[in-house]
Amino acid sequence: MVQRYVRVKTTQAQTYYGLLQLDRSVQVLDAPAWIGGQPTDLKLEPETYQLLSPCAPTKVIAVGKNYQQHATEMGGEVPQEPLIFLKPPTAVTAHQKPIYYPPVSQRVDYEGELALVIGERTHQCPPEQARSRIWGYTIANDVTARDLQKKDGQWTRAKGFDSFCPLGPWIVRDLNTAAKLQTFVNEETEPRQAAFLNEMVFSVEMLLSYISEIMTLAPGDVILTGTPQGIGPMQISDRVRIEIEGIGSLENHLINSDFPKK
Amino acid sequence: MVQRYVRVKTTQAQTYYGLLQLDRSVQVLDAPAWIGGQPTDLKLEPETYQLLSPCAPTKVIAVGKNYQQHATEMGGEVPQEPLIFLKPPTAVTAHQKPIYYPPVSQRVDYEGELALVIGERTHQCPPEQARSRIWGYTIANDVTARDLQKKDGQWTRAKGFDSFCPLGPWIVRDLNTAAKLQTFVNEETEPRQAAFLNEMVFSVEMLLSYISEIMTLAPGDVILTGTPQGIGPMQISDRVRIEIEGIGSLENHLINSDFPKK
Repeated sequence: MVQRYVRVKTTQAQTYYGLLQLDRSVQVLDAPAWIGGQPTDLKLEPETYQLLSPCAPTKVIAVGKNYQQHATEMGGEVPQEPLIFLKPPTAVTAHQKPIYYPPVSQRVDYEGELALVIGERTHQCPPEQARSRIWGYTIANDVTARDLQKKDGQWTRAKGFDSFCPLGPWIVRDLNTAAKLQTFVNEETEPRQAAFLNEMVFSVEMLLSYISEIMTLAPGDVILTGTPQGIGPMQISDRVRIEIEGIGSLENHLINSDFPKK
Repeated sequence: MVQRYVRVKTTQAQTYYGLLQLDRSVQVLDAPAWIGGQPTDLKLEPETYQLLSPCAPTKVIAVGKNYQQHATEMGGEVPQEPLIFLKPPTAVTAHQKPIYYPPVSQRVDYEGELALVIGERTHQCPPEQARSRIWGYTIANDVTARDLQKKDGQWTRAKGFDSFCPLGPWIVRDLNTAAKLQTFVNEETEPRQAAFLNEMVFSVEMLLSYISEIMTLAPGDVILTGTPQGIGPMQISDRVRIEIEGIGSLENHLINSDFPKK
């Protein structure tokens, strides 16, 4: 069975890292697994916790135009080097949590992406050593206010609102690089996005190496590897689900940002 | 006497928040002052510590083109709304620490700026309440690889290298908005940059309010308020000093990035 690494908050407001079991209980670890966390005697029953994002990154580094057909649909070309940008840690939210639609935008898009979780402090890592620094894989939605992205030039506001980085539901250690990524909206059976991860222009090893030449990565930091073709808008009350074979499904729904935040 | 709030590392590798005294000793606090830290009995003698950046932000939000003449020298206009971008927390470094010149750039510029330190969790704060959320003020150098900034379009790489955000040397609680900001290189007596803080296009209250509508600010987070006209390149072994009246001087020197990092 594939191990699913989670982070949870209990009904008593305790936060734990743990292993999700088949019966949906959580075996609690004494620390994040990537810094050597070991199982404890504590087990959480399904009704006693909710999922958080599976890690709490100090940095979320994202990559633009890393699929050929997405670069084309955006009216541009694949860059010569990875094009990186940052999402603030406050944008990170969990599986099944709401995405808040900012009143200042008239178009908020999904962008389904593979996310890499860094296992150890990494600075200037050559591509051939990069795989060992990727502790695991999860799913991200690089939510983007498309109108503000065009207006501002810099993408920070458009991609930086609170809740604009759903992440999860869990981390797995291994991934087939030929796995399929698909994005679904509501009950639609036809995916809005569908691509194989090996269609990336720059491989996960290249991305990690490139970023590590710029900034030191910390354990639990996250790299979003870019979205494939098929981006499009979401409406308030839509549910968006991103699936990656071998990981699972990340689902979130859109609500009005006037809705009180928890 | 104006209180100077510092963060230090001792020769025993302990990190403390504290108050810098006139005799250069540090009165240790039991927590960051902005979350209510109180003086302890511990006092550090000058030879037993080194300054760190005066806070350890979870986010560094910076603002582009916030002085009219700087927008002009960059060949652009002042934006209708603040133009924000992020610097990663790993870019933050302390007073008198080196700035590492990345081999991939041929032009690395200083940008002297006023920095705001956030005192409490802040979300959707109107401008008229913004002043109360600014706990204090310090100095920043928004170091920028100018060639990469132009090449990439997105500014993340150009402004995101490790050591590209010198911050400090300390935080003060109050500031005269008519204070002068000046940037000096080496022994030059003529400043490269000289402007009054009230020449900003968007006031500190407007900036904080605008950013808080996008992302929730945490205690200790930092906002860089933009650089005035006079930006220019630095060379390896240059020393750059940014002075703001009522705060002090932030000085750093450039070294080759092949130099081993501490």
